Amino acid sequence: MENFVFQNPTKIIFGEGTHLKVGEEVKRYGDRILLHYGGGSIKQSGLYDQVVKALHTAGVDLIELGGVKPNPRLSLINEGIELCRKHNIRFILAVGGGSVIDSAKGIAVGVPYTGDVWDFYLQKEEIKKALPIGAVLTIPAAGSETSPASVVTMEEGGWKRDIGTDLVRPQFAILNPELTYTLPPAQTGYGVADIMAHTMERYFTRTKNVDLTDRLCESVLRTLIKNAPLVLQEPTNYAARAEIMWAGTVAHNDLLGTGRIGDWGSHMIEHEISGIYDVPHGAGLAVVIPAWMKYVYHEDVSVFAQFAVRVWDVEPDFESPEKTALAGIERLKVFFCSLGLPVTLRELQVGEDRLEEMAEKCTQRGPVGNFKRLNKQDVLEIYKLAR
Amino acid sequence: MENFVFQNPTKIIFGEGTHLKVGEEVKRYGDRILLHYGGGSIKQSGLYDQVVKALHTAGVDLIELGGVKPNPRLSLINEGIELCRKHNIRFILAVGGGSVIDSAKGIAVGVPYTGDVWDFYLQKEEIKKALPIGAVLTIPAAGSETSPASVVTMEEGGWKRDIGTDLVRPQFAILNPELTYTLPPAQTGYGVADIMAHTMERYFTRTKNVDLTDRLCESVLRTLIKNAPLVLQEPTNYAARAEIMWAGTVAHNDLLGTGRIGDWGSHMIEHEISGIYDVPHGAGLAVVIPAWMKYVYHEDVSVFAQFAVRVWDVEPDFESPEKTALAGIERLKVFFCSLGLPVTLRELQVGEDRLEEMAEKCTQRGPVGNFKRLNKQDVLEIYKLAR
Repeated sequence: MENFVFQNPTKIIFGEGTHLKVGEEVKRYGDRILLHYGGGSIKQSGLYDQVVKALHTAGVDLIELGGVKPNPRLSLINEGIELCRKHNIRFILAVGGGSVIDSAKGIAVGVPYTGDVWDFYLQKEEIKKALPIGAVLTIPAAGSETSPASVVTMEEGGWKRDIGTDLVRPQFAILNPELTYTLPPAQTGYGVADIMAHTMERYFTRTKNVDLTDRLCESVLRTLIKNAPLVLQEPTNYAARAEIMWAGTVAHNDLLGTGRIGDWGSHMIEHEISGIYDVPHGAGLAVVIPAWMKYVYHEDVSVFAQFAVRVWDVEPDFESPEKTALAGIERLKVFFCSLGLPVTLRELQVGEDRLEEMAEKCTQRGPVGNFKRLNKQDVLEIYKLAR
Repeated sequence: MENFVFQNPTKIIFGEGTHLKVGEEVKRYGDRILLHYGGGSIKQSGLYDQVVKALHTAGVDLIELGGVKPNPRLSLINEGIELCRKHNIRFILAVGGGSVIDSAKGIAVGVPYTGDVWDFYLQKEEIKKALPIGAVLTIPAAGSETSPASVVTMEEGGWKRDIGTDLVRPQFAILNPELTYTLPPAQTGYGVADIMAHTMERYFTRTKNVDLTDRLCESVLRTLIKNAPLVLQEPTNYAARAEIMWAGTVAHNDLLGTGRIGDWGSHMIEHEISGIYDVPHGAGLAVVIPAWMKYVYHEDVSVFAQFAVRVWDVEPDFESPEKTALAGIERLKVFFCSLGLPVTLRELQVGEDRLEEMAEKCTQRGPVGNFKRLNKQDVLEIYKLAR
């Protein structure tokens, strides 16, 4: 096990009806906030009206900025920064999924900074201050509701880059599984793929003696394997929606990565796909991860064999741990298919013409991933395996 | 799943050599602290000298109060309160196990309170303020390093009572598994029993649809079942010590109880034993828990059958879930025995003469436990099963 520091102070308010408490939570931070959200879905579902009413009842004034898209854009973040400065806003409430929260985080670090907020995403500048933010989560997927990360796309050139700082962890996150009843099946599937990816990026490590966290990761994966099919059959199954929602947070609040060196190569490889083709992140991950696994598993077959046996109930074949490992990868791929997820680049309508460019951009700052360090040629091979 | 609020902001600093960072951590909170510890073990091991040196190097002055005993006493807490007031101390550093940290928490709530600190333990008064505390953990067991709880014994009458408030969660906890190398085998066993107890008190619930947290609990239990025998064979096995230490914190940082109504009856039943007979808490738990299980399992056999199959690899007997459940309880008892733990009151030299009095005191504030609400007669039956 590696030495580590772990601290995650975000207050989680979980359960039925909890979004109605948003007014009293926000009120602790200020009387005038930016309400940040995405497209029309929160207006259609009535959530927008309920949140606005709860804020007004608590005596909180709000300035609005909607329009966050999946793969959130730098241009909207810049607009949010200007709005906050103009109205002297000291708190941001994100109502939505990971994209909305990530966008709010971008605004939060941009407001107190005199330069261009993109400097942070280019890792040119260190983040020293941020406005506090809170979240009402509507899509369990990104884990952004307690994470220190924000991933943003600059439209020109399709650059997708991230920041990570404890300063942007939300002060609170309201998680009401009922708010996820109206998620379309495809988006439910993308979310599950994203949660599984966050878990697997931590699980596949070269760090030895990580017994407890191995098992915690397996717990999250088995919970998703059981409950994802249930919500696709019955979208208003509260119990199953609740399991997925809480798993989404636990997968990405850093506990599962304590003492381990995570991989994160698949995320970097996927970012180049969604950066250019604007496909959902979860769909991209479902395509990349099985290909990544096939490319790297022989670096440490035992980890993949354990994954197959403990997560997928594959019978261990001690004469050929390799066969055991490959059976686990195959079951993951079949599971993704069963959720209606794409598992090839073709299904994403990603052609072969830009694979080289993507591999180049992906490794621009050096090799990616830790289970196996991947250079440009490795990344290109993984894209090819994913065709 | 029940609605819940979860927040645990304690900063964990985990790993080899981390206790040497104590000076810089403490320095954030003040220049003048109370250093609170137990008996001579931290002086013998050299830890005391290292901590004092680290504090001095960071420019922190200290007032000392050693002498905390297992089942920490109210009288020492009162002494600590006076010391802190006299020297105008604003931060307490606990170096030791759960007893030292619990004692520090008692002092922390007592200093700003004008009345008798025991009022809080009697639940006569609400806790509104506390000094901040930090911990250097030497015994993985109580989970007090991130918990909101403190359990204290008033010597006269052998009353053991507890408080619970977020105000006493440590600001930071330094966890260095190397510091546990010198723990005697018995104390290692008591610690493991305590950690398992914290997990099982949460696991055995009547709340349905708690899939993820069931599995997280099972992860902690399986980790202990694997690693406890290893450290008894090889006390300086870093990897196994690290697993146990991190499991001890995860078991009691509230995550495992999210959305579930825990039981906690066994803890209440045990407190009466260690309150009167001053036996180690972990030893008392190893005696009480199997007896409690045998008394209550038929209230919901399925939970106990799941425990047997998933935690102890008992073959499921679908014709008799009851047999499966009982086999799991038996394996737990055998496991406790294998760690050198007592599993009967006789081994603790607890006679039958005071069982009735203990049952009376245990239920003085009403029935205990949630899996089955236990009145005085129930508690007495459990003591008798534990003979």
